[in-house]
Amino acid sequence: MPWVADRPCVLLAGGVGGAKLAHGLATHLGDRLTVVVNSADDLERHGLAIWPDHDTVMYTLAGLDDRERGWGLRDETWHVMEGLRALGVDAWFGLGDRDIATHLVRTELLRDGTRPTEAARRLHAALGLVPRVLPMTDDPVRTRVRTDDGWLDFQEYFVHRHQEPTVHEVAFEGAEDARATWEVTSALRAAAAVLVAPSNPIVSIGPILAVPGLAEAVAAARSRGARVVAVSGIVGGRALKGPADKMLSSLGYEASAVGVATILRPLLDGYVLDTQDADSVPAVEGLGISARVLQTVMGGKEDRARLGREVIDFSLSLRSDAVPA
Amino acid sequence: MPWVADRPCVLLAGGVGGAKLAHGLATHLGDRLTVVVNSADDLERHGLAIWPDHDTVMYTLAGLDDRERGWGLRDETWHVMEGLRALGVDAWFGLGDRDIATHLVRTELLRDGTRPTEAARRLHAALGLVPRVLPMTDDPVRTRVRTDDGWLDFQEYFVHRHQEPTVHEVAFEGAEDARATWEVTSALRAAAAVLVAPSNPIVSIGPILAVPGLAEAVAAARSRGARVVAVSGIVGGRALKGPADKMLSSLGYEASAVGVATILRPLLDGYVLDTQDADSVPAVEGLGISARVLQTVMGGKEDRARLGREVIDFSLSLRSDAVPA
Repeated sequence: MPWVADRPCVLLAGGVGGAKLAHGLATHLGDRLTVVVNSADDLERHGLAIWPDHDTVMYTLAGLDDRERGWGLRDETWHVMEGLRALGVDAWFGLGDRDIATHLVRTELLRDGTRPTEAARRLHAALGLVPRVLPMTDDPVRTRVRTDDGWLDFQEYFVHRHQEPTVHEVAFEGAEDARATWEVTSALRAAAAVLVAPSNPIVSIGPILAVPGLAEAVAAARSRGARVVAVSGIVGGRALKGPADKMLSSLGYEASAVGVATILRPLLDGYVLDTQDADSVPAVEGLGISARVLQTVMGGKEDRARLGREVIDFSLSLRSDAVPA
Repeated sequence: MPWVADRPCVLLAGGVGGAKLAHGLATHLGDRLTVVVNSADDLERHGLAIWPDHDTVMYTLAGLDDRERGWGLRDETWHVMEGLRALGVDAWFGLGDRDIATHLVRTELLRDGTRPTEAARRLHAALGLVPRVLPMTDDPVRTRVRTDDGWLDFQEYFVHRHQEPTVHEVAFEGAEDARATWEVTSALRAAAAVLVAPSNPIVSIGPILAVPGLAEAVAAARSRGARVVAVSGIVGGRALKGPADKMLSSLGYEASAVGVATILRPLLDGYVLDTQDADSVPAVEGLGISARVLQTVMGGKEDRARLGREVIDFSLSLRSDAVPA
């Protein structure tokens, strides 16, 4: 009989790293997995509501993701973008043709007044998704970064300027007026474990925790016995994907697995380091956080499922009610 | 030296027939041609502002039209629609991928508050269009048809139900509150001839003339010496394209070139019949309208240019200041 986790878990996630771990966790948890996804990277381009982190998680869980590119759909075509460029439009945000169908459906739902959480749910139903994927909030929150080129929208920095300008400050516009949804708070209320994906701690996990009520709901889950475990997205001093390492440095943090643990410290019971960072265990434990060394670099399905299982095991082992296996 | 018309003309046009004649006229008139296009067939689908008649004219004038299909762009692909269908959307209105780029650009301009006439102009500029193409109004007018299945939006009847339900009544919702734009009225003020395309007289030309001020501007142009000439879109008792013949019958008109002339009579100085309808000349002249028999069925570029020239010649010959050639 395969190993199956019977207790609900919540994963806080950004894009690619979050999607891979979500995929691995879903193997064991099925509908007992809820992914709370960063929505502060969302943008409007060409009149379309585009949710990069959400869609990476959704497409990955639906088995439709493009492994090579790391975003968007497999076997994608690009004719709409070619059409936009032929009309003189500066189409710098990559939108595949079938991906645009997703954006059209979502944009129309939102314009008709559908809540983002509900608009997401309808897309998930259409794709037959089993785990729940929840935007961190239904309210607009937008990450802005202060760089050498001034304040930029996140995707302007991330995609259009290829993460080249140095980031000196990060702000989550709208966060103070946002509210956690009842879907997110009730998922956290039921969670036996809260996991934090190997995503950028500042611009992927940061906005989720900045939603008023959300960090409090995580704290309440801990007080009820749930354990919070993060997986480092920095391995051997480098981000697996994206600019997290550069950003940690320029914002005054250590660009290392320990640096990430330091940022997330108020939240964490446990922390997973990659085998490459095994010598950082004492530093993590010095922060008062239980550490576990695992093979965290995820390739395909088996890798993801293995890490998912090990992370669930680790988090459940930290519970006060945990019995030795 | 090729024959060139040096006096401005206005063409009132629907979709395919209008586009072909516009193309032929543009050969001779260049930027002295203004096409006023029916906008009452426009619709919103998947959150996109879609202007079928306008786009058929625009794509045809830009040399991008698909000759076989009669609408949309040549060498088109359909991946967005496949994506919509994969998401469970009933995507019955045909939207090619590159065509969607047009709709995205337009929809965003309109949502930003750009006037339809100006949104159209920007698309024309991007495609390098020489003639002017003007929506008949900047205000929303929508054709609805009362059928055996009740009142239907025009495209619901035309595309989704394949023109199958019998039409008993036609209404142009919003027409009474619409206004002619200054671009349309000033083009009519300058026109030496006003031409009416071989489009459906009821649902393509009808809405244009229903815009308050527009029929009056045509009448004013006549009083200043411009002559109004229509080309029949009914040849041998059949519509060249679309349901005009069925619609004429079910609305109590004669489904013939003479039937069309009867409807447009208040407007017309001259009327062009196809060679197949040569024996209807006396009936047209009996309505007090000058008739000319021409080869009106347009195939390719040469056909269109020939008919364009002959129609311009005919209309200018009707002017009180006309000198014999």
